[in-house]
Amino acid sequence: MLAADLTFGRRPAVTALGGGHGLYANLSALRRITDRLTAVVTVADDGGSSGRLRQEFDILPPGDLRMALAALCGDDSQGRLWADILQSRFAGDGPLGGHAIGNLLIAGLWQKVDAVTGLDMVASLLGSRGRVLPMSSVPLEIVADVIGDDPLHPDETSVLCGQYQVATTTAEVSAIRLIPTDPPAAPEALQAVHEADWVILGPGSWFTSVIPHLLVPDLARALVQTRAKRILTMNLRPAGETSGFTPSRHLEALADHAPTLRLDVVLADPRFVADDREHLEGFAASLGAELVVADMAMRDGTARHDPLRLAAAYSEVMGL
Amino acid sequence: MLAADLTFGRRPAVTALGGGHGLYANLSALRRITDRLTAVVTVADDGGSSGRLRQEFDILPPGDLRMALAALCGDDSQGRLWADILQSRFAGDGPLGGHAIGNLLIAGLWQKVDAVTGLDMVASLLGSRGRVLPMSSVPLEIVADVIGDDPLHPDETSVLCGQYQVATTTAEVSAIRLIPTDPPAAPEALQAVHEADWVILGPGSWFTSVIPHLLVPDLARALVQTRAKRILTMNLRPAGETSGFTPSRHLEALADHAPTLRLDVVLADPRFVADDREHLEGFAASLGAELVVADMAMRDGTARHDPLRLAAAYSEVMGL
Repeated sequence: MLAADLTFGRRPAVTALGGGHGLYANLSALRRITDRLTAVVTVADDGGSSGRLRQEFDILPPGDLRMALAALCGDDSQGRLWADILQSRFAGDGPLGGHAIGNLLIAGLWQKVDAVTGLDMVASLLGSRGRVLPMSSVPLEIVADVIGDDPLHPDETSVLCGQYQVATTTAEVSAIRLIPTDPPAAPEALQAVHEADWVILGPGSWFTSVIPHLLVPDLARALVQTRAKRILTMNLRPAGETSGFTPSRHLEALADHAPTLRLDVVLADPRFVADDREHLEGFAASLGAELVVADMAMRDGTARHDPLRLAAAYSEVMGL
Repeated sequence: MLAADLTFGRRPAVTALGGGHGLYANLSALRRITDRLTAVVTVADDGGSSGRLRQEFDILPPGDLRMALAALCGDDSQGRLWADILQSRFAGDGPLGGHAIGNLLIAGLWQKVDAVTGLDMVASLLGSRGRVLPMSSVPLEIVADVIGDDPLHPDETSVLCGQYQVATTTAEVSAIRLIPTDPPAAPEALQAVHEADWVILGPGSWFTSVIPHLLVPDLARALVQTRAKRILTMNLRPAGETSGFTPSRHLEALADHAPTLRLDVVLADPRFVADDREHLEGFAASLGAELVVADMAMRDGTARHDPLRLAAAYSEVMGL
């Protein structure tokens, strides 16, 4: 960031790409360092409340969008109360049981207004500190090549369909694709990538929340072409769909899906990097990036990013 | 209204009691003459989206509350857009099909906050020009004695349970009761009746939207004791549960359910009053009221109150 910007109190424009709990944690950190914040969210979820809504109305899955909106709620009692309510779910196992209130509100808005207008209305209701956009204007399916899904043939490749299946498989994911294969990016998301000072990929479920953005051709191109600096924020440990992956292997999987993407910073926690540091540093350098190692984990030992520590790391990286 | 009040530009405090489309029309008129407006709404609906929500969650039926909130939406594009969305319904016949978006939002709010707080939050979202309150803090059932429900025994009295059944019966309703028989009034509703300059009963479905308020003991007492002036606004013609009733018979049915209630003004449209005028005038006088006859109907000939004409009638009655 230029000194001139700081002189005028100008905060950096940050566009964070992701989905689910990883994006929620990232936005909870980023809201502490800037109010020029845009989230670009995966729209491939097919499980839970979002999956049921897709099935009933063939709409974008609202769940990850709702969670990102809640992360950006206004910093007053009304904003927090609305966020709390939109995040909460109907009780019981009746027709509404399990649906998040915010998912129903967003789905309801979408019966009358376009996706981005509806999300902006919820943002306004929450007194939001940023904007939340879908990465694509159409609902997507994630398809994965996995190895070892069939215990009788542990070396064979098979195909899993749907984010829920991919995110919960115990087999090893080797590659993912989207259906449709050439989905339209949301124009507002492209603009947010082009106009950002910083774009951030990750943290989050690697194959189902972080990599999918790179498979939307216009969005991948925007990420390659933007003048923004690019940060990749690593997870705190390999889990779920990347269990057993080293940090370098995370980076490799990402690069495999976006061969022309260059990075400026790879941000990682010391405990995750540990044995793999040299290798990771080299791999990051081959993508144009500096490896920055910073404490980002919660003090309670759980593998969750601490919003303040993550904000401190970003602040340092961005020179704020 | 006192001249002193007008000098200071003070608008009258008006509390309108009712439900459904009658209350919606009334509020659409009243919002044009005051911003000190409270709606006190029946909570006995058991049909449609409200009925399904009661069945799933045992909550107050939100439908009539939502409709009243929509009638009071802010007079700008955001207020009208939100009202339009809350009034709209999910399409199709899936688990959500037919549910009004606003009903789901209100029901969702009520999982986290009390009924009145939730309604105030929606009012704030809409930039509402008044407050909407439930008449009771518990959901109610309407039970009716009807004559002629069984075509083989046209003179026999039978009992119908539930607002939907009562509102759609072709039999003649002679009396209604509530279950529970002594429901608690919402304290905020009592306060709104006590602090009003004017309270208004009707228009609306006579037995299921207008009279029920008089069967909530604390609310009936407040209506008797308040220093506010009392207006009864008649329907434009007998329909549904009062088909075939003369205007006087409407008044009689109301008085039967609230023997100690006195009125100040009975407001009626000339076409409805027509043949019954003298009788109605006498009956109104016996309740302490002056009969005011004013054009209130839509110009298109449908039996709906025209908001501007109704506002003009109120303005004249209230001496604004």
